[in-house]
Amino acid sequence: MRIRWTPVALAAASVLVIGAAVAQSQEPIQPIVPPQQVNLGMVELGKKLYFDPRLSKSGFISCNSCHNLSMGGTDNIPTSIGDRWQQGPINAPTVLNSSLNVAQFWDGRAADLKAQAGGPIANPGEMAFTHTLALGVLESIPAYQREFKQVFGKDKIDIDQVTTAIAEFEKTLVTPNSRFDQWLLGKKDALSADEQAGYKLFKESGCVGCHNGPAVGGNSFQKMGVVAPYQASSPAQGRVAVTGKDADRFNFKVPTLRNVEMTYPYFHDGAANTLTEAVDVMGRLQLGKKFTPDENAKIVSFLKTLTGDQPSFTLPILPPSSDKTPRPHPFK
Amino acid sequence: MRIRWTPVALAAASVLVIGAAVAQSQEPIQPIVPPQQVNLGMVELGKKLYFDPRLSKSGFISCNSCHNLSMGGTDNIPTSIGDRWQQGPINAPTVLNSSLNVAQFWDGRAADLKAQAGGPIANPGEMAFTHTLALGVLESIPAYQREFKQVFGKDKIDIDQVTTAIAEFEKTLVTPNSRFDQWLLGKKDALSADEQAGYKLFKESGCVGCHNGPAVGGNSFQKMGVVAPYQASSPAQGRVAVTGKDADRFNFKVPTLRNVEMTYPYFHDGAANTLTEAVDVMGRLQLGKKFTPDENAKIVSFLKTLTGDQPSFTLPILPPSSDKTPRPHPFK
Repeated sequence: MRIRWTPVALAAASVLVIGAAVAQSQEPIQPIVPPQQVNLGMVELGKKLYFDPRLSKSGFISCNSCHNLSMGGTDNIPTSIGDRWQQGPINAPTVLNSSLNVAQFWDGRAADLKAQAGGPIANPGEMAFTHTLALGVLESIPAYQREFKQVFGKDKIDIDQVTTAIAEFEKTLVTPNSRFDQWLLGKKDALSADEQAGYKLFKESGCVGCHNGPAVGGNSFQKMGVVAPYQASSPAQGRVAVTGKDADRFNFKVPTLRNVEMTYPYFHDGAANTLTEAVDVMGRLQLGKKFTPDENAKIVSFLKTLTGDQPSFTLPILPPSSDKTPRPHPFK
Repeated sequence: MRIRWTPVALAAASVLVIGAAVAQSQEPIQPIVPPQQVNLGMVELGKKLYFDPRLSKSGFISCNSCHNLSMGGTDNIPTSIGDRWQQGPINAPTVLNSSLNVAQFWDGRAADLKAQAGGPIANPGEMAFTHTLALGVLESIPAYQREFKQVFGKDKIDIDQVTTAIAEFEKTLVTPNSRFDQWLLGKKDALSADEQAGYKLFKESGCVGCHNGPAVGGNSFQKMGVVAPYQASSPAQGRVAVTGKDADRFNFKVPTLRNVEMTYPYFHDGAANTLTEAVDVMGRLQLGKKFTPDENAKIVSFLKTLTGDQPSFTLPILPPSSDKTPRPHPFK
């Protein structure tokens, strides 16, 4: 069917669009909007780097190991596995929609994706490499040399280029088109009655006080354990590590709830295995509210409508090492 | 341009095709032919399973961890990393073109891809799980339940279905269209003079005695160290472990040389870092021949023409675990 726009139809459509825009602006959650401007060459280079375990000492761990794009941009284990199977101190936050975060890491110690990207490479408990060694590997691979030169126009690869490219790829990792966004954008049958009831509860109970905006979170730091203290299984103390202010102890970045069905287990220590458990703990500790099983189930059903289109791209093929490439050291 | 086939043109084309077929049949290496028949639903399911780390005890290791399809179907380290960072006893062979192998594993202990696929899941040094536990995980995930039922038409998932699906996906992991295959198929300018000279040396020196057929290897077991013993850094003794015959000690499956530029390091112990080194060792130990630097370089340049089209597919998105899914145990 081809629609022919008469002046009357156009006017009617405008009213509809304006109507939807008004309704949407009244909601505390806004739809995910794909990035408006990306550098495609940089995205393709960043994608390769994101999947390349040669950025780790062992040659085994890549960004995708703990922020697995087959699994909601997480590793789905309570705390991550680092070089030589070291146990990480904190749950790996999802990389999906992370461009919308106010800052990166649970304690916000990196201002943006670019600042974050260099961290794990040089963290002895994660990829356990150094920036210098990583650059030595990349410089030794002719196809990388050419691709960096094509994208950045310089003769030498530096860490700034590496993190810029990874961040540019990560900008593309947004998940629009969830059923909830379709509903926000006017498709009123996109949510069931229970899911709509769950969203109403989510707003009226106060969850939305922290989980708002396009990412349904990610835009503020809040104390974990407002009404009652949270007994964490992790020693992490949150934002105090960055600000040095005692008031910031146990303040963590509010996680995004986008794709939350896929990003289990929950909380900074990964202690909650299910959404039911997470909603219950949040209600009691943050809001002083004990949700009934029915309320909890409705909120959970709403949360599952936040799963959007997952990033869809061809698995990158990495350029092979050359004879000059320093070999990884997995076991020493 | 649209070609119009006149009877004369058709006759001429037939002569060309027959001519190429005759020339090709005289070569000891044949072009890679993509699989003639695959079950697409099974391939898609097998692809998910291949990428799913929930088939491991830790929830961290998938088939793709050690047979990484971004890196020539290998892990590019001498011996693989298993559960809790255990060091594997042997170099991970490439999964690419493995459907062409006479048998699977270096010692041929699995008759085919299906028989191979169940091995690492239950190997305490690799994925460290059990088939029963893996099936429990899959059965607890509604989207997997539905997909298995769609593909196999049964109500219950069993290990036979799991390994059948993985093997079907692996059948698709062939790499046609290398420059060498283009040359075999009649594109005479596909190889440089040095590359053709390298192929001539490869044939005349005897390399082709073991490295022949479409996979340029993979079709026989041969002693590692024919003319002089090989000082392996691995304790593996090869095919004797399967047959019990002393004559099979240090007999290993001849590896495919397809994509060999990408599958470093080389040999069953991964001791050779470069093709130059591997060609030198093979010449001396298998053929009693010391290649000059020029001969070695020509053979290496030929070997690099064996890199074919790498598998190209969209990164699979894995169905999320349910509340009932047993959680992985990465640290206990």
